[in-house]
Amino acid sequence: MLYEISEKTIQLENEGKKIIKLNLGDPDQPTSNEIIEAAFEAMKQGKTKYSSSAGEKKLREELASIHNVSEDNIVITTGSKWAIFSLLFLLLKKGGNIVIPTPHWTSYELTAKSLGAETRFLKTDLDSDWKIDAGKLRNLVDQKTRLIILTNPNNPTSKVVDEKVLEEIVQIANNNRIPILSDEVYSDISFVKTKSILDFGGHHLLVKSFSKTFAMTGWRVGYVIVKKELAEKMVKLNEITLTNVPVFVQQAALKALELRQKIAEEIREDYQRRADLACNILSKTKMKFSRPDAPFYLFPKYDDLDSEKFVFDLLDKGVAIAPGTAFGDYREHFRIALTVPEKEIELGLKKICEALP
Amino acid sequence: MLYEISEKTIQLENEGKKIIKLNLGDPDQPTSNEIIEAAFEAMKQGKTKYSSSAGEKKLREELASIHNVSEDNIVITTGSKWAIFSLLFLLLKKGGNIVIPTPHWTSYELTAKSLGAETRFLKTDLDSDWKIDAGKLRNLVDQKTRLIILTNPNNPTSKVVDEKVLEEIVQIANNNRIPILSDEVYSDISFVKTKSILDFGGHHLLVKSFSKTFAMTGWRVGYVIVKKELAEKMVKLNEITLTNVPVFVQQAALKALELRQKIAEEIREDYQRRADLACNILSKTKMKFSRPDAPFYLFPKYDDLDSEKFVFDLLDKGVAIAPGTAFGDYREHFRIALTVPEKEIELGLKKICEALP
Repeated sequence: MLYEISEKTIQLENEGKKIIKLNLGDPDQPTSNEIIEAAFEAMKQGKTKYSSSAGEKKLREELASIHNVSEDNIVITTGSKWAIFSLLFLLLKKGGNIVIPTPHWTSYELTAKSLGAETRFLKTDLDSDWKIDAGKLRNLVDQKTRLIILTNPNNPTSKVVDEKVLEEIVQIANNNRIPILSDEVYSDISFVKTKSILDFGGHHLLVKSFSKTFAMTGWRVGYVIVKKELAEKMVKLNEITLTNVPVFVQQAALKALELRQKIAEEIREDYQRRADLACNILSKTKMKFSRPDAPFYLFPKYDDLDSEKFVFDLLDKGVAIAPGTAFGDYREHFRIALTVPEKEIELGLKKICEALP
Repeated sequence: MLYEISEKTIQLENEGKKIIKLNLGDPDQPTSNEIIEAAFEAMKQGKTKYSSSAGEKKLREELASIHNVSEDNIVITTGSKWAIFSLLFLLLKKGGNIVIPTPHWTSYELTAKSLGAETRFLKTDLDSDWKIDAGKLRNLVDQKTRLIILTNPNNPTSKVVDEKVLEEIVQIANNNRIPILSDEVYSDISFVKTKSILDFGGHHLLVKSFSKTFAMTGWRVGYVIVKKELAEKMVKLNEITLTNVPVFVQQAALKALELRQKIAEEIREDYQRRADLACNILSKTKMKFSRPDAPFYLFPKYDDLDSEKFVFDLLDKGVAIAPGTAFGDYREHFRIALTVPEKEIELGLKKICEALP
């Protein structure tokens, strides 16, 4: 449903329609000029050839140094999506199930489904501020559970997992020898400190991306940090699927790392301001919501709303959002991405309020 | 084995060693400046965002016009490898087998294996000039055959499938309702006319790439032409794996199409000259080989050779080639890619001749 809305929006734009796009986690900020220039330089230097399926040595070394791991643990991927698909593909070869606290990013569920794996959802809700109930998690996992997936900070709620809860989850995973796939693509721009799965050691899997932190969504570059043995399997899968992320894109990523404090800070400040603005507006309506701990999303609830119908009606009025059902059993919710300038956020929210039944 | 050699070569180069790389189908020609500039312009225009998982409308329209199909039949992929993995992933969901004339490109077999599918090989040999025996093919296919894969021109033999044989193969496929996946990534730079699977209509699958024709291997962009229903499934798979090929890469591909006659002709002439040179040298040795119909490869045979051992010995002497076993049951063969300047081809072949037992 998320991707249907996205393709439909692109189609409307191709037809010349003006759409306020609050549907995608695609920051409106341009990729920094310095990053673009680094890619251009690399192209001119002939970095347009096949290369390592593990990723460029220099980029892996730099990431290894940032995360305090060995470069052997790092594989560069075509965005975090490919990282997640690869990991699920490799870990679910012999079947089994995965457990995901929900609301959850659409792609996990669709990927598991495409691989014929069972997905078990652990429901969280707005009333308890999206807190994950570790006791319920313990009851959901069994001997066939191959993976617990966490998104921290979460998409669509923008909540950071409480540290104590995270410790409990890790404990359950460790006791059952289940790896946690921790998708932390929003953590570097989080408004609050976010503990990484790396801090817990063990056989857990970290998925990261350059997309959100550096406004590089369309460059398609991310990475994983996993045990060496699994990294080697991922490289073998890259060899028969992607060959490599373009080297000039990896050079751009290397430049991004150099600029990371400045860029991440700017993005964080922009989105803090936008979040404040949006929360202010929403607090004057009948919508219920929780304040975000991180960019980019709000996931408000409007009693008795059929969000799927609402989303398509709203698209006709020139505003794209995502229905709550794209993230699980949340028909009364919808997701707003604050990935447009403040003026457009104001106008978009105004139109949303007018269109609500 | 092909990818082991490739990773090992990159590693040796990272250590500062000079290697004559005859192991990869990666043309040494730089990507044209005009193509690079098109990518740079697109980046500066902000074409660095998420976009359609089908590919950019303009690029698909241009390809549709070139191939005389509808844009609904075209999906842009991360190189031909992703096209092949996607198609096998989708068509082998319920098991079955695939049939491949061999010698064959390594990736088909590894992909089928990673998906748990059976691969049936139809052996061809140098003595019969690599001709495919349609009668044998008829005996190999059965009710569980989901796909016949052709590489036309072939990798590693660089032979174009004889038109009459191709007609017979299509007939067998049609009679058994089996689609042919025709990998034609070398056809636009072939030395001889190469009939496309598209000329036969039906439910067959065309895989193409910008890599070889435009010296754009590291850009990772290719496409498929398939029936609309299958194209839609591929788009859905793209949505949960890659999102999209970077739009600036697709803009570069669009520019490449504009320049295609000039660039393809230059590449073809370069490789015809190199092939003549290499054939001249080889004809003075004990090696047996067939003259290539297309870039980039020669696949000579040397009686009683253990090519796997030979390849690793040769790598120590500074020349990288690929062992025949990477392409099937061809231990006495090895593959030479003519993807280096003529001086290096001469030196590389000299070292190969010296190193042969």
